[in-house]
Amino acid sequence: MVAANQWIKIKAPATVANMVCGFDILGFAVNNPYDEMEMRWMERSGEEPSITIINIDEYQLPTDPEKNVAGAALIALLEELDEKIKESTITKGISSPNTGKIPATTKIKFEVKINKLIKPGSGVGSSAASSAGAVVGANYLLGNLFSKDDLVRFAMNGEKLASGVKHADNIAPCIFGGVTLVRSIFPLEVVALPSPQLYVTIVHPQIEVRTADARSILRQKVLLKDAIKQWGNIAGLVVGLMKSDYDLIGRSLEDVIIEPIRSILIPGFDELKKACKQAGALGGGISGSGPSIFMLSKTKEIAIAVEKEMNQLYDGIGLPHHTYVTTINQAGVEVEA
Amino acid sequence: MVAANQWIKIKAPATVANMVCGFDILGFAVNNPYDEMEMRWMERSGEEPSITIINIDEYQLPTDPEKNVAGAALIALLEELDEKIKESTITKGISSPNTGKIPATTKIKFEVKINKLIKPGSGVGSSAASSAGAVVGANYLLGNLFSKDDLVRFAMNGEKLASGVKHADNIAPCIFGGVTLVRSIFPLEVVALPSPQLYVTIVHPQIEVRTADARSILRQKVLLKDAIKQWGNIAGLVVGLMKSDYDLIGRSLEDVIIEPIRSILIPGFDELKKACKQAGALGGGISGSGPSIFMLSKTKEIAIAVEKEMNQLYDGIGLPHHTYVTTINQAGVEVEA
Repeated sequence: MVAANQWIKIKAPATVANMVCGFDILGFAVNNPYDEMEMRWMERSGEEPSITIINIDEYQLPTDPEKNVAGAALIALLEELDEKIKESTITKGISSPNTGKIPATTKIKFEVKINKLIKPGSGVGSSAASSAGAVVGANYLLGNLFSKDDLVRFAMNGEKLASGVKHADNIAPCIFGGVTLVRSIFPLEVVALPSPQLYVTIVHPQIEVRTADARSILRQKVLLKDAIKQWGNIAGLVVGLMKSDYDLIGRSLEDVIIEPIRSILIPGFDELKKACKQAGALGGGISGSGPSIFMLSKTKEIAIAVEKEMNQLYDGIGLPHHTYVTTINQAGVEVEA
Repeated sequence: MVAANQWIKIKAPATVANMVCGFDILGFAVNNPYDEMEMRWMERSGEEPSITIINIDEYQLPTDPEKNVAGAALIALLEELDEKIKESTITKGISSPNTGKIPATTKIKFEVKINKLIKPGSGVGSSAASSAGAVVGANYLLGNLFSKDDLVRFAMNGEKLASGVKHADNIAPCIFGGVTLVRSIFPLEVVALPSPQLYVTIVHPQIEVRTADARSILRQKVLLKDAIKQWGNIAGLVVGLMKSDYDLIGRSLEDVIIEPIRSILIPGFDELKKACKQAGALGGGISGSGPSIFMLSKTKEIAIAVEKEMNQLYDGIGLPHHTYVTTINQAGVEVEA
């Protein structure tokens, strides 16, 4: 484990959830944008709070750990820490370099500095980056007691705070890197998927779509015939990724259930998608619950041409926006001591 | 192409559709049971019928081509034959060894002898074997003018006759062999999936479940939350097959949508499934629309232990049944000249 009081640096990537047809199960991490965080643990005395959040960005997010997504994720980790330490000191002999052992949970406090470079509410996993970054950082400080699956479980508490629902389709790729499948949420099972070289173009139109709202407009029931189309595409996308079959990936990037409803919230969605595909994109759609839109391309040149289409369309209707041309991030959250 | 009047022999394998979680999209072929067929083409004169069906089994299936699944599939093939011949003589120079060219459709007739060893209505693709066997045979006779995708399209007309719906989840594995994904039905796209060595135990309880009835009891709408569980399992199953991850295959063989409804039609389903899994099966469920049940196992020994459980359970309740212990058939329909 890392010595008390020593700061570590954390880089937590943005993520694209759903990947068009894989609502709530598929997602991938990207190399840009990402959040920067710093963390340390200290010995805690008396009734000091066990988590201190320091925001060093402009977003004025809550610093009360129970109201901050990174805080909520760390609270979940701390709840299981005593049990884990007991288990680990017996079975693994893990110890602190300065005290010889990890202090009991009641004697640990975390300080977390968060510099959000992923704009909250943009639909590329801003809350997931904070939650995932915090628990990966805490785990690193403590000598990696917990598995990645454990960390996903903890970080899902941040997602619950942000959107009202425990979901892992941003958290899983943020922690594992690459493309991930959440095969099951209770009990949690994350499966890492291989993927070929893919370029990602993202546009974030500066409108607000709250995740909770984007969820509430969905219908609770879907037509069986639509569900069948959807699972054909999901299976096709997984095969396409695993076989590096770009055409199959492109044909499978179709969502007949969620996108037709949610795209109503995003200005110019249909035109933009059409223009991007005409520019050579394999396909794409809403990133998570929006408003960001992502497109996958086989080459950097196409990804840049796609960005140009996005800029043209949103410039044309006078909608402020940001774009990113990036690649799939294979590392997930990274820590530097 | 094969000379006029010369018989060829055809072996058309049984198939297991749905593969538990992949309703209407996944399926695989097995090495036992299979149908035997013989076919030849002849020059047709005047108003002779273009298709003659001769049943050499006990099942008294219709011999009118429009009412026989093999006939319906061949009719669909003949409808596209003229166009194909035109295209092929220009682009590929295909010709008949005896006449120098394929006769126009109006001048061709097919004779088909069918010996069904796959009992109709057993739920392991009996109708698909006849439809697929007939079109693969006809294509072989004509010098393989059509692609496998074309043949699947033609054979689906047999399925429509049998069940009222054009579906390809038996036809595709019967023609392609192995495990297949029907990513899309209109337009048709079949994706062949690799699979590890798997042993298949099948039990056919001698009760009647009509495919059309098994379809009509399904609900037209499903809960989105169930659909999400289902697509997690479908993706998990595809990854498990492609990575040869037996445990992942086992965990993914779960159906929260179709099985809970259809299993009501099959006596002792839940007990049987439980007993088979306790005997070591990875998992399994209803084959197609039933009443057959299949189980997948990692070894032959387990597959035989699973068969024993099936026999014990159905012997115990006095239900006549057949069992098969077999493997996945990788060849699909086979032709011998």
